[in-house]
Amino acid sequence: MRYSLFGESHGPAIGIVLQGVPSGLILDMDFIQNELTRRSPGRTLMSTSRKEKDEVEIVSGAFEGRATGTPLCGLIRNTDQRSRDYAATRWLARPGHADFTSNLHYKGFEDYRGGGHFSGRLTAPLVFAGAVAKLALRERGIEVLARIRTLEHLEDTPLDPVAPDIEALRAAGRKLLPVLDDEKAEAMRDAIIKARSEGDSVGGIVECFIFGMPAGVGSPDFDENIESHIARHIFAVPAVKGLEFGMGFGFASMRGSAANDVFVPAGQGVLRTRTNHNGGINGGIANGMPVVFRVVIKPTSSIAQEQDTVDMRTGEAAKLVITGRHDPCILSRAVPVVEAAAALAMCSVPGVLA
Amino acid sequence: MRYSLFGESHGPAIGIVLQGVPSGLILDMDFIQNELTRRSPGRTLMSTSRKEKDEVEIVSGAFEGRATGTPLCGLIRNTDQRSRDYAATRWLARPGHADFTSNLHYKGFEDYRGGGHFSGRLTAPLVFAGAVAKLALRERGIEVLARIRTLEHLEDTPLDPVAPDIEALRAAGRKLLPVLDDEKAEAMRDAIIKARSEGDSVGGIVECFIFGMPAGVGSPDFDENIESHIARHIFAVPAVKGLEFGMGFGFASMRGSAANDVFVPAGQGVLRTRTNHNGGINGGIANGMPVVFRVVIKPTSSIAQEQDTVDMRTGEAAKLVITGRHDPCILSRAVPVVEAAAALAMCSVPGVLA
Amino acid sequence: MRYSLFGESHGPAIGIVLQGVPSGLILDMDFIQNELTRRSPGRTLMSTSRKEKDEVEIVSGAFEGRATGTPLCGLIRNTDQRSRDYAATRWLARPGHADFTSNLHYKGFEDYRGGGHFSGRLTAPLVFAGAVAKLALRERGIEVLARIRTLEHLEDTPLDPVAPDIEALRAAGRKLLPVLDDEKAEAMRDAIIKARSEGDSVGGIVECFIFGMPAGVGSPDFDENIESHIARHIFAVPAVKGLEFGMGFGFASMRGSAANDVFVPAGQGVLRTRTNHNGGINGGIANGMPVVFRVVIKPTSSIAQEQDTVDMRTGEAAKLVITGRHDPCILSRAVPVVEAAAALAMCSVPGVLA
Amino acid sequence: MRYSLFGESHGPAIGIVLQGVPSGLILDMDFIQNELTRRSPGRTLMSTSRKEKDEVEIVSGAFEGRATGTPLCGLIRNTDQRSRDYAATRWLARPGHADFTSNLHYKGFEDYRGGGHFSGRLTAPLVFAGAVAKLALRERGIEVLARIRTLEHLEDTPLDPVAPDIEALRAAGRKLLPVLDDEKAEAMRDAIIKARSEGDSVGGIVECFIFGMPAGVGSPDFDENIESHIARHIFAVPAVKGLEFGMGFGFASMRGSAANDVFVPAGQGVLRTRTNHNGGINGGIANGMPVVFRVVIKPTSSIAQEQDTVDMRTGEAAKLVITGRHDPCILSRAVPVVEAAAALAMCSVPGVLA
Repeated sequence: MRYSLFGESHGPAIGIVLQGVPSGLILDMDFIQNELTRRSPGRTLMSTSRKEKDEVEIVSGAFEGRATGTPLCGLIRNTDQRSRDYAATRWLARPGHADFTSNLHYKGFEDYRGGGHFSGRLTAPLVFAGAVAKLALRERGIEVLARIRTLEHLEDTPLDPVAPDIEALRAAGRKLLPVLDDEKAEAMRDAIIKARSEGDSVGGIVECFIFGMPAGVGSPDFDENIESHIARHIFAVPAVKGLEFGMGFGFASMRGSAANDVFVPAGQGVLRTRTNHNGGINGGIANGMPVVFRVVIKPTSSIAQEQDTVDMRTGEAAKLVITGRHDPCILSRAVPVVEAAAALAMCSVPGVLA
Repeated sequence: MRYSLFGESHGPAIGIVLQGVPSGLILDMDFIQNELTRRSPGRTLMSTSRKEKDEVEIVSGAFEGRATGTPLCGLIRNTDQRSRDYAATRWLARPGHADFTSNLHYKGFEDYRGGGHFSGRLTAPLVFAGAVAKLALRERGIEVLARIRTLEHLEDTPLDPVAPDIEALRAAGRKLLPVLDDEKAEAMRDAIIKARSEGDSVGGIVECFIFGMPAGVGSPDFDENIESHIARHIFAVPAVKGLEFGMGFGFASMRGSAANDVFVPAGQGVLRTRTNHNGGINGGIANGMPVVFRVVIKPTSSIAQEQDTVDMRTGEAAKLVITGRHDPCILSRAVPVVEAAAALAMCSVPGVLA
Repeated sequence: MRYSLFGESHGPAIGIVLQGVPSGLILDMDFIQNELTRRSPGRTLMSTSRKEKDEVEIVSGAFEGRATGTPLCGLIRNTDQRSRDYAATRWLARPGHADFTSNLHYKGFEDYRGGGHFSGRLTAPLVFAGAVAKLALRERGIEVLARIRTLEHLEDTPLDPVAPDIEALRAAGRKLLPVLDDEKAEAMRDAIIKARSEGDSVGGIVECFIFGMPAGVGSPDFDENIESHIARHIFAVPAVKGLEFGMGFGFASMRGSAANDVFVPAGQGVLRTRTNHNGGINGGIANGMPVVFRVVIKPTSSIAQEQDTVDMRTGEAAKLVITGRHDPCILSRAVPVVEAAAALAMCSVPGVLA
Repeated sequence: MRYSLFGESHGPAIGIVLQGVPSGLILDMDFIQNELTRRSPGRTLMSTSRKEKDEVEIVSGAFEGRATGTPLCGLIRNTDQRSRDYAATRWLARPGHADFTSNLHYKGFEDYRGGGHFSGRLTAPLVFAGAVAKLALRERGIEVLARIRTLEHLEDTPLDPVAPDIEALRAAGRKLLPVLDDEKAEAMRDAIIKARSEGDSVGGIVECFIFGMPAGVGSPDFDENIESHIARHIFAVPAVKGLEFGMGFGFASMRGSAANDVFVPAGQGVLRTRTNHNGGINGGIANGMPVVFRVVIKPTSSIAQEQDTVDMRTGEAAKLVITGRHDPCILSRAVPVVEAAAALAMCSVPGVLA
């Protein structure tokens, strides 16, 4: 499965073309729309007040409720644009954003309104595509589930990577703050509100599990192993600055004798590992254990405080106050986006879909 | 620049085909061979005792000392193979290695000796290709330099990501243990010797800097941004389990007001950022600051201690003692490999070479 | 430049996503719409009576009349669908069409109406994308011009491949039947009318010229030479069954002494060839002479006569009468499609756009 | 299956890296070597007198006589080089060759000896790879067979495209001149000898059949249909200037009523076509009939006669006499090359190998 993402935050529409969708796949629109709702802004008091319904029109590749197998294009109209928010600060590079780099890259011809093509809004069609990918994976017994692992200094309950509680993860996915521990959720909510009241924002870590990846599936190709597949999809998500599998950076201070996942018989000739430090992947190939990875999401770059910057036209120092509508914390919304990127990555691994 | 890597640890040869090398590039063989030496085993007392000269024969794409621009194939003969080391344990899956997953993936037809295609030995042609990439980058004023940042619990001196000391990094690259602080190097050496004496191994973190990436260079494509480019190359390196840019996982506990790199005038219309938390990349495009990323290398999987495992033929529990020659710490050798992967990644970013 | 084409003949919309459009390119909508009109049905008495306005909405990648450089999506709504035309014959494989093969390939889940994704209607977004490509090429002094070379047994005036009359080609492109010789056009018109009156259709050959390809441009890659680039784009056009460059199949009966294009000095160190049998390409690289190729278009498969076929559900013999609206000759409309495919192919050759 | 071809005519070696070879495939070296012999020079009196043994060393991707599934590299050493043949005429662009275009493309850094990377010699590793592809296809019941269809004005016996005589094709493949009709072969031999005696060369047409392609196999992707797959592989073969499927250019003068392949029941719900004008492909997907295509091979560019040319250094007119060893007719050797390209193309069609 491959995709082409298109659109700008304040253009007529955003969308995605998905190639390689299995023909006959039932397009469960309730499921798809629910995934989009999980990502949608305006869902909680804490989130941006931009109201987009994010209704997807499938304009191709579907017939009588099923995927035909030809390229599937999902289109989302932009309806609640307030472009005037941006015109006044057109030349003031917003810190943490891609205004400056895209201005250089596109030689000033970029649609600068709301970050244009670099807007977090582009994650809506990504989630749409991820929902289709999840439906395809579900038929093969594969499920992708993520949650907020940490928010600022607050950490949700750890899960055993050998046998993570799949029901608890599913339940977390239905919450406004997708964490296991409701008391932690309360504390996180307070932290977000506090940051917002200070004109600031918070970041955190999303943890993602992939269940049901058949052992032996993966890519023999040197730069297309499962970790590379996930990585190139995940780093395409805005605000992601790091990715680790299994023990990840924790491996740095471990000894080999502790780090190695020793094999144990699981009956009928099947092998399992006693621990799952490697996050379900050895040599780029799934070993049958749950795939586990964590993604760091930097704090929202758009904050209410006045910031130093430079006028890109004049090269002179300037002060910037970002108005408009912005999330003080995008972690809740990042959870379905990380799941979507992971689901799309899995569907591009040879041997998973076909 | 694209590459095709081929070979097995105990086959006739290993090598790589590089496409897109700039025609006319002077192939400085002293530089290339020195890069291979930095990666070579048997370099220090601490390293594996397998002696491979790792002499590369360039069999195509070169003429009169320069790259022609046609596919460049570098070939390294395997000369010091001791295949008998592996035959006895053919069916015992080595913990932490890809024996089990490759056995499933290749249906038992893999060349199992020494890990076959998954051997760390395959990083030799990668370093060769990286050396060619570095020569191409050097002509464009781009330089890639890495060092050991941490080894087990020991950490080398931090560098200012806004203006890292390039001379100190170059000097570190010439050392057997590529760190800035020689006293730390001594402590790290002791830690490695201690681990070896206990039949164990250690891991750590490699930190890599890319200097001279022109602002605005990068890919407009959603899944081909600079971070995705680096990620898919880096995760192809054996033993890598995590990657972070700039502040990386440190972003999780930061506020936006601290995380944002504000812009400051640098004269003549040029912008810089006051901090470099984003590691030189905004929205997948270089912003002109040094690119900074860190890679975690898990401890060497081959250890001298007896380990539990399973016989893949019978599915029954077994004990495994790995004999043969193995590094208790591959961090020194990982440094040029990470540099090579980063250099190759940069050469595949549109706008860098052409 | 790469593209993703999507849509079905009777779905909500058809369209294309173009990646790699140069940022700042002025999107001359008059030119673009005129290209679509050249391809549009219902243009002549001879053509299908399906009336589609083929108005393209650019939903992304454009801002203030210019390409931004981000993915550019062009969308064309399907408005004049008569799906009932197709339901009655859903299981009767139309000879010459892809009904049978797509039914197998998509396991019966294809949108069969009007040929679905395989409809000639999908050439509308291709022509749109080709128009954008032509605008990009024009800025680099490259022009793509095609004409009908033969229709059934009628042949238009040959052109000297060394210096084809570019003005005559431009003029032909504006005619309803794009040929040089108006008397031949008259005879061709008669042939089409005759075929139609007999419930039949005709085919022919489109000849295409590319002017201004700079010598030395092309791809070093073995399977991405200019001829391969053109070929894979051209064979994606429905009804194409052959492609030849320069003398093409005429080479079969030539001697080398006649076939070789000898080089002659053209002043100031520049070389030209005395003849242009190779159609402007040697070894997959442009030699500076006009690129010349010819494409055979098979007669329209949809004819009014009753035809033998098989019911795909029952496997039994059946008779098929195709009703609906169909061109007895698609050559006129194939001319801008071939130009579009060639323009897109040129924009994908490294070194042409960047 | 993908490949990377490398090497120059007079460099140390030529070779190919094949990715995606099915693990476990038995590498029948007698078959492989025989394919190389079919292509080898010095095979007949008529051929070039350069003697290369073309022995392939498989340096990776094979173990105990089988493909492992990892990248398979085949290497052929260049042993009979006479580079002095070329030095004297280094700056004289040989008509019909890529000397001029590669000199521009590679800015003078190309290995000019014997055409370097553009040499017909590079078809040896292609044939090697094609042989591996044929072995993989054979396990799936697919066979690729070609023959000389015409040589100059001489035409071999036509075959019924609905049911071509597969045994006759196999027998032709074993002949020095792979044609069905031995009397025609005699006449062709005379024509070649005559051309050689006149310091000239001849061209012709190779016709290729693919048996056993399962109906429904093909690519849904707009530019990766079977015809595009074959085309991009075939146009990578030196001296190819045209390609047609089924009736090919013959369609131009046909009516739709004759051109359409009507469907007939073949029992048990299976469909066949009564004729096979479309060469086994509808809409880019195999329809179960034999795939048929023809390729025009231009006459050998290297001829013994003195030719006009230009000195690329000075831009002045010059006379060129090509010495060295050259085929007056490469058609016999082109037959296995076309088969190889077709076999590799089929192995890259999704659904054929996996």
